[in-house]
Amino acid sequence: MGSFAKAERLLARLQALGEVGALPGGGVCRLALSQADGAGRDLVCGWMRAAGLDVIVDGIGNIFGTRPGTQPGPSVMIGSHIDTVATGGIYDGNLGVLAGLEVVEALDDAGIATLKPITVAAFTNEEGARFAPDMLGSLVHVGGLDLGTALDIVSIDGARLGDELAAISYAGTAPLGAIRAAAYLEYHIEQGPVLEAEGTDIGVVEGVQGISWTEVTLSGRSSHAGATPMRLRHDAGLAAARIAAGVGEIVRGIGGDMVGTVGSLKLSPGLVNVIAEKAVLTVDLRHPDEATLRQAEAKLAALIATVAAAETVTASTRTLARFEPVAFDKALVGSVEATARALGLSTRRLYSGAGHDAQMLARTCPAAMIFVPSVDGLSHNVRELTQPGDIANGLDVLATLALDLAGRANAAVVGISRANAATGETTDSNANLKES
Amino acid sequence: MGSFAKAERLLARLQALGEVGALPGGGVCRLALSQADGAGRDLVCGWMRAAGLDVIVDGIGNIFGTRPGTQPGPSVMIGSHIDTVATGGIYDGNLGVLAGLEVVEALDDAGIATLKPITVAAFTNEEGARFAPDMLGSLVHVGGLDLGTALDIVSIDGARLGDELAAISYAGTAPLGAIRAAAYLEYHIEQGPVLEAEGTDIGVVEGVQGISWTEVTLSGRSSHAGATPMRLRHDAGLAAARIAAGVGEIVRGIGGDMVGTVGSLKLSPGLVNVIAEKAVLTVDLRHPDEATLRQAEAKLAALIATVAAAETVTASTRTLARFEPVAFDKALVGSVEATARALGLSTRRLYSGAGHDAQMLARTCPAAMIFVPSVDGLSHNVRELTQPGDIANGLDVLATLALDLAGRANAAVVGISRANAATGETTDSNANLKES
Repeated sequence: MGSFAKAERLLARLQALGEVGALPGGGVCRLALSQADGAGRDLVCGWMRAAGLDVIVDGIGNIFGTRPGTQPGPSVMIGSHIDTVATGGIYDGNLGVLAGLEVVEALDDAGIATLKPITVAAFTNEEGARFAPDMLGSLVHVGGLDLGTALDIVSIDGARLGDELAAISYAGTAPLGAIRAAAYLEYHIEQGPVLEAEGTDIGVVEGVQGISWTEVTLSGRSSHAGATPMRLRHDAGLAAARIAAGVGEIVRGIGGDMVGTVGSLKLSPGLVNVIAEKAVLTVDLRHPDEATLRQAEAKLAALIATVAAAETVTASTRTLARFEPVAFDKALVGSVEATARALGLSTRRLYSGAGHDAQMLARTCPAAMIFVPSVDGLSHNVRELTQPGDIANGLDVLATLALDLAGRANAAVVGISRANAATGETTDSNANLKES
Repeated sequence: MGSFAKAERLLARLQALGEVGALPGGGVCRLALSQADGAGRDLVCGWMRAAGLDVIVDGIGNIFGTRPGTQPGPSVMIGSHIDTVATGGIYDGNLGVLAGLEVVEALDDAGIATLKPITVAAFTNEEGARFAPDMLGSLVHVGGLDLGTALDIVSIDGARLGDELAAISYAGTAPLGAIRAAAYLEYHIEQGPVLEAEGTDIGVVEGVQGISWTEVTLSGRSSHAGATPMRLRHDAGLAAARIAAGVGEIVRGIGGDMVGTVGSLKLSPGLVNVIAEKAVLTVDLRHPDEATLRQAEAKLAALIATVAAAETVTASTRTLARFEPVAFDKALVGSVEATARALGLSTRRLYSGAGHDAQMLARTCPAAMIFVPSVDGLSHNVRELTQPGDIANGLDVLATLALDLAGRANAAVVGISRANAATGETTDSNANLKES
């Protein structure tokens, strides 16, 4: 039971990072590449450097802090993100990054050296709340999106990503993919209600649902709400409402794990007595099975065409994000499960309904995720909460498995060297071990 | 055919007033009591004073410019409003005010004195686009709403009406209802497509549809769009969409003259991947028959309750405006029709789908309206247009009827006196006539 890692320190850091961009009524707003995100990055990088990690930042602003191993080669990477949605909680993403930091510090404290390096990663714009697509930093990291294209993405507030990155001084110079990973572990809150409802300690994540984001723009004609007979209208607002309501019908019709959300719907001019000339809505569809997801997309396309014709408006669509379902490495998923059980924790296999950086990393290395319960299943919500005991459980699984994957080396000596490295000093023993 | 009034001068003033708050792509934005509205008022008051009118402003900012008659007593009032929606045209409201101004100037030009005074009125916040309810100024004028209550109304942008009125220096000192009206005439564009479609010159307005504005607020729970199963959601956005779509079904189900519009629908936090915690939408229902309007309201209430229960969200509603249908004075409506026909113009009786200040004035005096065609039926739209020939037709009807109602006095002498009054001079003949 337990591990060498210290949940208290992790919990304190979650609270401290949660103060950056804190909202008056609770929760946090650190939209990607905002000034608050910059301040959060500064705090985390400071902690990394204080822990002696070698911190580098790449061209899309991904942050990597590495604790060397006794052998050269790829890292065991532990990561997630620290950007949040506009009304987010303090756990989503932050937990995975700060737990990684806790693991390396706890290894130092325990005087444990590892064969492989351990890298703590914080990826840029995972949420996609300000820049689409989501999971942008990890996507660029694995070569799934060209850096130049990514830097030219424009935010919902009209800002260019590259400019915003430079404005917070996180346009780094490290080459993309400079840190190679032997394995990637992401520790995250469930963000759903399943583990809590079943009283399960650890969610063993088999993969990530496929994600399809579509922006629908409807163009009609604004005219007087009182003087325009229904038959002569081109009401973009009514068309948008019918599509948004229809998304609910499609999703419930498919049933099972299918989910769909219209989280944003904007009418213009947006006045009580003016028929809307334009409506823009977003449709978020997710399912663990690609064929089912495509079925939902086809039904959505048909719905949009039917409604646009019926309401005599024109419709156009734009794909904001599209990721196929991802299955994590079976062996690594098995290791998460075995590690948790060996620690005496109950487990359940599940698919993630949310997108995560792990699904991008899975393109280039074995990846897996560890979930812990979310109170009331809430996430992307200022009332997001995971209980301290659950935080500690997941940290134990992460620390134990990370050490297992990295491999224990001559612990005591390197432990001392790491402590010295944190103060800027080096020792012969450290140098020797690096070359061993 | 024709009258003593000059359409060219009216058209030029419509263009000039349309420059105040003009939008880059055409159209105009002079939301009530905005700085642009203040500038528009200054322009119109300047024209009124230059025309020798006695201009007074009451406590709610209504503007009245009076041309004296040869007999004391109530005025023939010609009025409308000069505030606009956010993306409005230059005719809506402005036409009625500036046509009134043209009538009194043309009477001067023609040297015609009238027995009754003629008052040109511009009422505050007719549109209701910034402050609810609409037709606020005329409602307060006829005693339908207490002045103190009206001044405390808060705009969609959070400003208090009384403060905004003071900020543009239109918190006047004239007592409410100081100008009594023997009759009220409002000349307005149709704002709908009926007259143009039928090729009719003049719409003889029998009355105004009843208007019901309801704001619906739905409160759910924001959570992750991917990780929250459909059965566990409290999606305020989906509930709002179902209600907005349902409004279309209710209205089409009732059919005939029934119209309904959801012009504003706002989701928060309004992000692609976050289930909406809160939704606020407005429902605008209108029908010429009170019983049918109530039927629609009852169906809306039932819909809201059904959807809220089905989507496990809470719903609250607030009435933003509620006006019963108004029938105009039958004799005066008949006079509009007879006047138009005597001028050789084709006519059609119809109900106004839009609310107008005339419906408020109808509470205290005989009121009637004159409609002219709107190109493509467009209004509350930057492309709002009425052809010059149609503007001239309506002006002829207005001028002819206004003179008929006011009664012709010793024309030539007073004509000269009015011209002098415009330059600030007075004559004995004028003084004598005022006392006659």
